Amino acid sequence: MKLEKIAALVGGVLKGDGSIEISDVRGIEDAGKGHVTFVAKKKLLPLLAESRADAVIVDHEVSTDMAQIVMANPMLAFAKLLAVFHPEAKPEPQIDSRAALGKNVTLGKDVTLSQFVSIGDNVSIGDGAILYPGVVVGPDCRIGDDAVLHPNVTLYRSTILGNRVILHAGAVIGADGFGYVPDEMGLHNKIPQIGQVVIEDDVEIGSNTCIDRATMGCTTVKQGTKIDNLVQIAHNCTIGEHSILVSQVGMAGSCTLGHHVVLAGQVGLADHVTIGDQAVLAAQSGTFRDVESKAVQGGSPSVPAVTWRKYVTILPKLPEMSRKIKDLEARLKAIEKRESDS
Amino acid sequence: MKLEKIAALVGGVLKGDGSIEISDVRGIEDAGKGHVTFVAKKKLLPLLAESRADAVIVDHEVSTDMAQIVMANPMLAFAKLLAVFHPEAKPEPQIDSRAALGKNVTLGKDVTLSQFVSIGDNVSIGDGAILYPGVVVGPDCRIGDDAVLHPNVTLYRSTILGNRVILHAGAVIGADGFGYVPDEMGLHNKIPQIGQVVIEDDVEIGSNTCIDRATMGCTTVKQGTKIDNLVQIAHNCTIGEHSILVSQVGMAGSCTLGHHVVLAGQVGLADHVTIGDQAVLAAQSGTFRDVESKAVQGGSPSVPAVTWRKYVTILPKLPEMSRKIKDLEARLKAIEKRESDS
Amino acid sequence: MKLEKIAALVGGVLKGDGSIEISDVRGIEDAGKGHVTFVAKKKLLPLLAESRADAVIVDHEVSTDMAQIVMANPMLAFAKLLAVFHPEAKPEPQIDSRAALGKNVTLGKDVTLSQFVSIGDNVSIGDGAILYPGVVVGPDCRIGDDAVLHPNVTLYRSTILGNRVILHAGAVIGADGFGYVPDEMGLHNKIPQIGQVVIEDDVEIGSNTCIDRATMGCTTVKQGTKIDNLVQIAHNCTIGEHSILVSQVGMAGSCTLGHHVVLAGQVGLADHVTIGDQAVLAAQSGTFRDVESKAVQGGSPSVPAVTWRKYVTILPKLPEMSRKIKDLEARLKAIEKRESDS
Repeated sequence: MKLEKIAALVGGVLKGDGSIEISDVRGIEDAGKGHVTFVAKKKLLPLLAESRADAVIVDHEVSTDMAQIVMANPMLAFAKLLAVFHPEAKPEPQIDSRAALGKNVTLGKDVTLSQFVSIGDNVSIGDGAILYPGVVVGPDCRIGDDAVLHPNVTLYRSTILGNRVILHAGAVIGADGFGYVPDEMGLHNKIPQIGQVVIEDDVEIGSNTCIDRATMGCTTVKQGTKIDNLVQIAHNCTIGEHSILVSQVGMAGSCTLGHHVVLAGQVGLADHVTIGDQAVLAAQSGTFRDVESKAVQGGSPSVPAVTWRKYVTILPKLPEMSRKIKDLEARLKAIEKRESDS
Repeated sequence: MKLEKIAALVGGVLKGDGSIEISDVRGIEDAGKGHVTFVAKKKLLPLLAESRADAVIVDHEVSTDMAQIVMANPMLAFAKLLAVFHPEAKPEPQIDSRAALGKNVTLGKDVTLSQFVSIGDNVSIGDGAILYPGVVVGPDCRIGDDAVLHPNVTLYRSTILGNRVILHAGAVIGADGFGYVPDEMGLHNKIPQIGQVVIEDDVEIGSNTCIDRATMGCTTVKQGTKIDNLVQIAHNCTIGEHSILVSQVGMAGSCTLGHHVVLAGQVGLADHVTIGDQAVLAAQSGTFRDVESKAVQGGSPSVPAVTWRKYVTILPKLPEMSRKIKDLEARLKAIEKRESDS
Repeated sequence: MKLEKIAALVGGVLKGDGSIEISDVRGIEDAGKGHVTFVAKKKLLPLLAESRADAVIVDHEVSTDMAQIVMANPMLAFAKLLAVFHPEAKPEPQIDSRAALGKNVTLGKDVTLSQFVSIGDNVSIGDGAILYPGVVVGPDCRIGDDAVLHPNVTLYRSTILGNRVILHAGAVIGADGFGYVPDEMGLHNKIPQIGQVVIEDDVEIGSNTCIDRATMGCTTVKQGTKIDNLVQIAHNCTIGEHSILVSQVGMAGSCTLGHHVVLAGQVGLADHVTIGDQAVLAAQSGTFRDVESKAVQGGSPSVPAVTWRKYVTILPKLPEMSRKIKDLEARLKAIEKRESDS
């Protein structure tokens, strides 16, 4: 592909020879002849002098012999070009004869149902959806267009998936919420979980992640949100648009997240917590209190990240501080004694 | 269903018109005509005035125009009524022709084996058990009456499940414990894990939870215990009756839990730890020491929750405390100098 | 098996009657007639007097009436003897007619493909490999000799498994790394993940563990490393030889671990962190900084374990320390006032 075509494709301004033939996109250090590379971080710019790439995508014109494409977001261009040069292999649409379909299943155009897929009664599956082997879809589910369900995914009954939803292998959507009432004998009586899970368009969910259905009503993941592997989302949670939940995050029941929230790895939320729009919780932090919009917090229980970063540097000094306090007390007592003696 | 029948069913005392027809049970704010609602927490009582429900279940007689059912545990009544008005859909019992059965498999009455279920040799399955698609049962397993194994559950060989056990999708019971012996060359030699897992009656286990089999002997989960999603239980653990393990709890090998223990989300236990009856560990806490019966602990390493709640409020003040100590030292030194100078 | 044969087999020196017939190996307290036991920890030695075993494996000659086998590593002997007396049951090698094979699949000798296994195009599977029911292998994967893939394991395309690799049930290898570029509208644009996962020889991976493939290049787990259940390894990580990752560890993208590293339960690593050879991170610790070879760290963020163990004992005293500082301030101020007054 000619460089000028690439410039047009990523929406950048070409500086240099647009007729160069480009065969791939690579990182600065890996790029060679016929490759376009990119500089997404300022600190990587010095590496450009050493790069053997034929062209570079940058966010401002730089001094180099290479052809350049200048645009605001070189990383975005990189993502687009990866998709161009390395298109994902998709299976040929077909309904494998070894897939098991229930009654009243509605299939869109160009659907792929692989071998050993199970589809319950009254399920509808949109155009272009791909269900890999071992996927199990309970009754009354609705799967949107171009959804991709990787191997061994389970949807419990009545789960709704929007368009272009991607579920990675082993994800479990719609299992019973964890709800019990203890009785006078100390037995835990199961509260029937009669709600469902709704996953909106363009959500991606990682491997072995679990999203429980609501006791009543919906557990909802809104449009564009991305969830990593091994995340736990309990019953009746609502996750706003375009949020990011990193691996091993755990959310207890009835939490509400705004849009563009970021929960870093292993974050924990107690039940009924609300996290405001664009708030960020640092890795391994946890909160049982609401967090305001745009707040950035860390620690467990979480506090503003600035505060957290300061206090953790003091922790190793605690034994010394404790000793100093004892020392101060002794010396002060001595002074007081001398005072009273004199 | 008439309200008087509902009162009898939940074991409450009816105050008001027992002939009202009730079609569903709902939360206070969602309830409308033909619905019975409930007040499980005192603070929700004021909402009752606004509720459009026809009847309410309360733990003491309240002043309202609605018909009332008075009983000790309204939440328990709610759970019972949900099951009445929203009975869980169950598949018709049948052995699907696409299920794969080993030799010498014993099936009770009314068993459901769905398509793509695999049953190993010498397995017995109790009356009314339901195995959803993709379930794999290793040889020599025993599954109790009315057990439910959701899709893609795996039981390794020799696993024993009691009656009414529920395993959610992707749960793995009986995999090898994580045991190795390093040799003089630094290689990790696998210790064969020849034990098994025993899950007693009325245990429910969440999606993608893992319970490893014992090196020798049993990993045991006793009667009535409820385990959430993505929990790790290592080899040779024993979990007492009616305990609650919330999502993402991790227990290392050979831990022992008493009865009615509560481990909140993301709690971690080091190996060989014993947690006494009715003890509670707060979310994200961890311990490498035994915890006494009825203790309530928090933090990592855990301490009594009262202590933990106090010290975490001081953490953000550490930098200030450190500065103050320095200031005190300087001022004290100055006083001491003035003393010695004078 | 005669005791003298056992001594030869484990490479120990026999003291006593080598003609004793041994039928099993057991722990000290469980051993009885016909059993050999072992003492792996000094503190267990006193139990030997009570043991009903016929022979014992010890790391130095002890005073006992039993026959003894003396060798450096009795625990290793135990592991070997467990394998001898309790050999793992393996299925008879066969390609089940209900397994689904793609085009151009290469199978070694004595391969087991169980029912409901799916193999993609261009896959090669080595001699003696066992794939249990529900395993899904994407196209272009390579599986080494004697590899064991337990039920419902998923390999995404192009995954490479070495010889004798063991993957426990529900493990997901090679799913897309969690990589997105936000655009000016706040949408998360997926970065295609075109790399792969390489698992070297003798690696064992626990149930429901997830290892994502690299954005470009490889996510690599080197020879002899053992990974427990529910672990998350993100894209582009490299894990050195003979390391141990305990359950629920989470590693963000592009981390590098040396050889013989130990990450205890629930440890978290931020992205791009390097952990040196033989370093150890204690349970529930986390780091966003590199850790040196042989370092032993604890806490979150982690510090040397010695430091961590000291400061956590002070934490419960923080409220008292805070009060003391206030008291010191008041008393100091009083002295200063008296000084200036006099």
